[in-house]
Amino acid sequence: MANITKKVSWSSRADESGATGEGTPLLNGSGQPRYCRQLSGGSIFQVGRLSTVDLEEEISAEEDSLRGRLKEIPHNEKLLSLKFESLDYDNIENQLFLEEERRMSYMGFRCLEISRWVVCGLIGFLTGLIACFIDIVVEELAGIKYRVVKENIEKFTEVGGLSISLILWVVLNSIFVMVGAIIVACFEPIAAGSGIPQIKCYLNGVKIPRVVRLKTLVVKVAGVICSVVGGLAVGKEGPMIHSGAVVAAGVSQGRSTSLKKDFKMFEYFRRDTEKRDFVSAGAAAGVSAAFGAPVGGVLFSLEEGASFWNQMLTWRIFFASMISTFTLNFFLSIYHKNAGDLSNPGLINFGRFESDSVAYNLYEIPLFIIMGAIGGLLGALFNKLNYWLTIFRISYVHRPGLQVMEAMLVAAVTATVSFTMIYFSDDCQPLGPDHTEEYPLQLFCADGEYNSMATTFFNTPERSVRSLFHNQPGTYNPLTLGLFTVTYFFLACWTYGLTVSAGVFIPSLLIGAAWGRLFGILLASITATGSIWTDSGKYALIGAAAQLGGIVRMTLSLTVIMVEATGNVTYGLPIMLVLMTAKIVGDYFVEGLYDIHIKLQSVPFLHWDAPATSHWLTAREVMSSPVTCLNRIEKVGTIVDILSNTSTNHNGFPVVIQGADGDEPSKLCGLILRSQLIVLLKHKVFVELARSRLTLRKLQLKDFRDAYPRFPPIQSIHVSQDERECMMDLTEFMNATPYTVPQDTSLPRVFKLFRALGLRHLVVVDDENRVVGLVTRKDLARYHLGKHGLEELQLAQT
Amino acid sequence: MANITKKVSWSSRADESGATGEGTPLLNGSGQPRYCRQLSGGSIFQVGRLSTVDLEEEISAEEDSLRGRLKEIPHNEKLLSLKFESLDYDNIENQLFLEEERRMSYMGFRCLEISRWVVCGLIGFLTGLIACFIDIVVEELAGIKYRVVKENIEKFTEVGGLSISLILWVVLNSIFVMVGAIIVACFEPIAAGSGIPQIKCYLNGVKIPRVVRLKTLVVKVAGVICSVVGGLAVGKEGPMIHSGAVVAAGVSQGRSTSLKKDFKMFEYFRRDTEKRDFVSAGAAAGVSAAFGAPVGGVLFSLEEGASFWNQMLTWRIFFASMISTFTLNFFLSIYHKNAGDLSNPGLINFGRFESDSVAYNLYEIPLFIIMGAIGGLLGALFNKLNYWLTIFRISYVHRPGLQVMEAMLVAAVTATVSFTMIYFSDDCQPLGPDHTEEYPLQLFCADGEYNSMATTFFNTPERSVRSLFHNQPGTYNPLTLGLFTVTYFFLACWTYGLTVSAGVFIPSLLIGAAWGRLFGILLASITATGSIWTDSGKYALIGAAAQLGGIVRMTLSLTVIMVEATGNVTYGLPIMLVLMTAKIVGDYFVEGLYDIHIKLQSVPFLHWDAPATSHWLTAREVMSSPVTCLNRIEKVGTIVDILSNTSTNHNGFPVVIQGADGDEPSKLCGLILRSQLIVLLKHKVFVELARSRLTLRKLQLKDFRDAYPRFPPIQSIHVSQDERECMMDLTEFMNATPYTVPQDTSLPRVFKLFRALGLRHLVVVDDENRVVGLVTRKDLARYHLGKHGLEELQLAQT
Repeated sequence: MANITKKVSWSSRADESGATGEGTPLLNGSGQPRYCRQLSGGSIFQVGRLSTVDLEEEISAEEDSLRGRLKEIPHNEKLLSLKFESLDYDNIENQLFLEEERRMSYMGFRCLEISRWVVCGLIGFLTGLIACFIDIVVEELAGIKYRVVKENIEKFTEVGGLSISLILWVVLNSIFVMVGAIIVACFEPIAAGSGIPQIKCYLNGVKIPRVVRLKTLVVKVAGVICSVVGGLAVGKEGPMIHSGAVVAAGVSQGRSTSLKKDFKMFEYFRRDTEKRDFVSAGAAAGVSAAFGAPVGGVLFSLEEGASFWNQMLTWRIFFASMISTFTLNFFLSIYHKNAGDLSNPGLINFGRFESDSVAYNLYEIPLFIIMGAIGGLLGALFNKLNYWLTIFRISYVHRPGLQVMEAMLVAAVTATVSFTMIYFSDDCQPLGPDHTEEYPLQLFCADGEYNSMATTFFNTPERSVRSLFHNQPGTYNPLTLGLFTVTYFFLACWTYGLTVSAGVFIPSLLIGAAWGRLFGILLASITATGSIWTDSGKYALIGAAAQLGGIVRMTLSLTVIMVEATGNVTYGLPIMLVLMTAKIVGDYFVEGLYDIHIKLQSVPFLHWDAPATSHWLTAREVMSSPVTCLNRIEKVGTIVDILSNTSTNHNGFPVVIQGADGDEPSKLCGLILRSQLIVLLKHKVFVELARSRLTLRKLQLKDFRDAYPRFPPIQSIHVSQDERECMMDLTEFMNATPYTVPQDTSLPRVFKLFRALGLRHLVVVDDENRVVGLVTRKDLARYHLGKHGLEELQLAQT
Repeated sequence: MANITKKVSWSSRADESGATGEGTPLLNGSGQPRYCRQLSGGSIFQVGRLSTVDLEEEISAEEDSLRGRLKEIPHNEKLLSLKFESLDYDNIENQLFLEEERRMSYMGFRCLEISRWVVCGLIGFLTGLIACFIDIVVEELAGIKYRVVKENIEKFTEVGGLSISLILWVVLNSIFVMVGAIIVACFEPIAAGSGIPQIKCYLNGVKIPRVVRLKTLVVKVAGVICSVVGGLAVGKEGPMIHSGAVVAAGVSQGRSTSLKKDFKMFEYFRRDTEKRDFVSAGAAAGVSAAFGAPVGGVLFSLEEGASFWNQMLTWRIFFASMISTFTLNFFLSIYHKNAGDLSNPGLINFGRFESDSVAYNLYEIPLFIIMGAIGGLLGALFNKLNYWLTIFRISYVHRPGLQVMEAMLVAAVTATVSFTMIYFSDDCQPLGPDHTEEYPLQLFCADGEYNSMATTFFNTPERSVRSLFHNQPGTYNPLTLGLFTVTYFFLACWTYGLTVSAGVFIPSLLIGAAWGRLFGILLASITATGSIWTDSGKYALIGAAAQLGGIVRMTLSLTVIMVEATGNVTYGLPIMLVLMTAKIVGDYFVEGLYDIHIKLQSVPFLHWDAPATSHWLTAREVMSSPVTCLNRIEKVGTIVDILSNTSTNHNGFPVVIQGADGDEPSKLCGLILRSQLIVLLKHKVFVELARSRLTLRKLQLKDFRDAYPRFPPIQSIHVSQDERECMMDLTEFMNATPYTVPQDTSLPRVFKLFRALGLRHLVVVDDENRVVGLVTRKDLARYHLGKHGLEELQLAQT
């Protein structure tokens, strides 16, 4: 029964639309408003268009088929999961909040503003430190690994028996990756991958459980070190964004719930509004540290996340980004024994492109656009392959043991393939005079020469990218580059989505740089030598941008990131053109990688606008109804029952007031959240009926803030039978001025209001101000443009 | 009487608050809601708290004193002008609009999207062309002028009688400036200045009359050429932003009302929402062309204007910026005879800072911060002086003749001062081997040497900036730089606000570069030579950033603009620190230059947030009431009377519906604009009472679009006595789902809704959905944080 009622309240309309057929306008017939009925005496009436009995029958049949489908396709991008809650970007302006704000002097607000800046500074500093830590540990460990393997290879090149070297390499890699995979799979699965899709969702307003916890950060940092040192085709840049976000969420709250430590600081910031702002800053600081791109970081946060642009917020985000780059540069400059030289920013450093070598000419623009199109195509292929792989993984590789095994398998294959490629390559190049190669492998080359394939495979990916950008023309022969592109493409595609913490930025750049350089070499070979074409490093850069753009489909922020990472703005225009082309071409086939993964998680993600052709729909069709409403003075028992009802599990409840005359319909007078009710129940803010209005204790905002963000479940709160008979006065605690829309409001208009203000609940009222429905994130995220026009996703408890 | 009623409806509360004293919370006593009464039969009842008779008496007394004050201080930053209307960023979702949207297929929306991109491309292209035109004409004319004067000076240096050269110079300058001033003062006064304050206001949502007209553009372009060639201390960069905006407003509408030419294109874009988006793109394209900074342009538009960040919009803006830079570069590269080399962007080119020469070290950071503080102080001084000057100008120099005279005076003084400085300077420098100096003046220097003061004064400001940045150490002696800084500071300050089109960016950069270089030279002189300090060009750059930041107080966008203009990202962090410091220090004393000028114009400018301490206020206190409401089916005569009532001059009217029972209060059912009513009246969409519901003609959206944006005044529409008795059915045309808020909503909440959605009218309703008030831009812009807490500006018909 419980399960059935759930379907009534959440999926009924989805089922209806299934019955009337897709593609037709979703006007559900009568258009009669359905009023919520007051809850009184503890029993719940939900009077909808269908009677409860009808519903049960109707649903039980439909549910079976639904369940069957659910088993068949456990994760399906046509489903929307109900397990995700929304963040509340709108302030809960109840009496307590307003009183506090009114008490606060102008100086108080100034102090708050200053502490926001301090927090942002701290976020930047700590994020920079973490980036620095990751970088140094990876450098040191990878250095040891490559030296050991190199010595071993050199030993056995002479005496024969290189298979032993191979085994050594494979075992070393697998061990690192195993450790990385185990901590992720067993301790914190949310730390897998780059974390960018999760942060995108968080900034979009979806509460992803455990995503900004301290434990996640620790696992993430340890995991990314293991996977990079383990030689996987991954980068350490993506995870920095997640790390920055966790740092921000932690620092801004002035306490750690994991460590059970409360510094009694920044208590004002303990709500979703402020926290989300800081998380934006943290993500920006992460990008900034990863690529040495403070402006790129700000744009990333804004492009991927924030909807409401606020000047002061942007400056704070910028400040955090700057401090982050600065901290990282400062400590890395000490590490590189060149203390105080701050001109070489970021975890990944593309090396300096001097202006003379990178001049481009008008007739190169079409070439750049062609490269953008290639990047878009290859990116779409990458995403499609990875999509199928992810579907496969979700279906068959979901036990931790299997996940660790797969990760180790990939590590072993990566090492084997690399070794084979190096072994069979006969691309020998003379050692440069300045020995720029970090770990030159001589192998079967003549003395004074090294194996060119090894510079790409036997190296950390960051170094490989740099050498592809900057090595002299002629360093690589085309065959090497072609083989490298193909193998690395499939390796990277297989690797993304493994249960390890790792990013896809660097592998994408590397693939792109390889085929870009190849492109440049081919161009040079079909034209006269000595011309402008000969600088294949330039084409490597463009190729890298095209490939990355084709995979992740960012434009503005990525342009700026690339420009900042190259340290030269001359390339702004070509990079932008390339990214645009890659996006347009790629979008024609399949979505961006992050969006695919978000969809596969069935997250109710809100895009920027409502689907173009959704003017047909109005709030009346979109809203959830009937709504469970509360009276302004409500019986405790009723509230407990409502909150305990696992079948509905609503989080927001409109508060209504009965007219003077009992018959008169009840008007909306506020909105209260589950979390607030929980706190009220916990502190037993009851009014006994006998003694009039005796509140046991005056509740303060602090009580709500202390409970934030992990409010206890209703089951943990004991309410005695006597207490159930008491009343609770919600007047002080409810948000007395919730945003409302009339029933006839079109979906785009509802969407705009919801998105622009970052709402969680939007009350739909009739022309007498009576509650007729409630719009939440799921109701809006359900509609999307498919191939056959407007489609509606189904809601499911995955 | 007419005049008096105006005061009732608009200024009554302002007067009240004046009576109760400033600084105290503005709860206006009773807090009783005031219901609007239906208008019927043509006579207007406005039943407020005070009876009409009381009001007349009360107001007439108050008005006299108000008038007195008005005469005394004609422009006062404590006043808010009522002459400015708001733009409507919210779509008017009436039945016509919804029908059109519903008729449109998915392909239709795709086509619209594509045409948006096309329009943005066109905007970028045309803006680039205009920038190119200005640049080439200025270069050519200035070249002629400087050559003529140089030859003259050289002639008279030998024979004596340099005063003739001086007179020649003064006359040449004055003539150019006179032409520039005359066209601005007589033909289009709105084209004066840089136009950035006006564009800021437009993007903020204030309709500034005539600001985006073709005539304004023509005058602006001609004016800026005259003032730059006339040797004033101005730049041609600021006006580019205005020019871009005008281009955008013109192109996006697919017609020119000035030229009476309608291309029948882009009709869908003929409304404020779309137009404002395109104007953002135009402003960005302008910045992009001016500084070769496409990303900076996007950020400028966002930082200064847009509140609702939309990813697609941002990309389009970016596209326009890119195309603009590209076009400019392409044509300039042809002009500079090195066609196709696109690596040297922008109107102002800071020259290339190579990475080696610009490395900075940690211990320089404090120095940068000190420079930022100096920039902030000097900027505040500049702004304060300019503020007084502007007050003086508003009071005494408001006749075109006087304005032209002043401009000529400034031109003459500028030339004289420059000449004197050059004449008395004994700073001779050897001519460089590559003759980088464009117009080297030998004067009294030895052969093979030139006068160093002349490189700064006898040059276009752009060239002077570049030589300050890049000339070898030792090119300028400290005295030259000091004198130059001081004189140019006062000249620039005097010049800004003259009735000529010109920008303040370049003069600010020039002042800053001069004292920055001086700072660098002093540093070098007190430390060992050969150290890192010796590169005074670096300090010139930092000084330029500091000075500009101190004057205009932009941070994020300015950082990016500077970085893009220098072509090197190494300086991102120092520039950002400097700009932050300059802003903080400057804000302590006085606002930014643009904000000062906006305030002096009494524009109802909405900042990002409501004042911090405004939680005391609710919609009830803020709103205008009583509201003039219309019935859904209203008598034509009544509508004509309301619209003709010059005393109220409202622009938006809530539409209400009478309950079935006559006594029942009427509910809000829509909102209609004056402009819509005008169109309805013009097309005589009447229903004669005798024949039931005979509409003469079915009105379409096209009729509204054709009339946009210059709707005829009500006086131009003739309505016969018979027609006055007809009825008008507003149902189809009103926005049936206007945004509403309850009366108790706090000001910050109202503000957030208003600002985030770019509203023009926000209806305040009671808990029965009856109209009690209307919040417009003026009601929100009135409150600001002054020295004594929350202050309320007075509204006035200036």
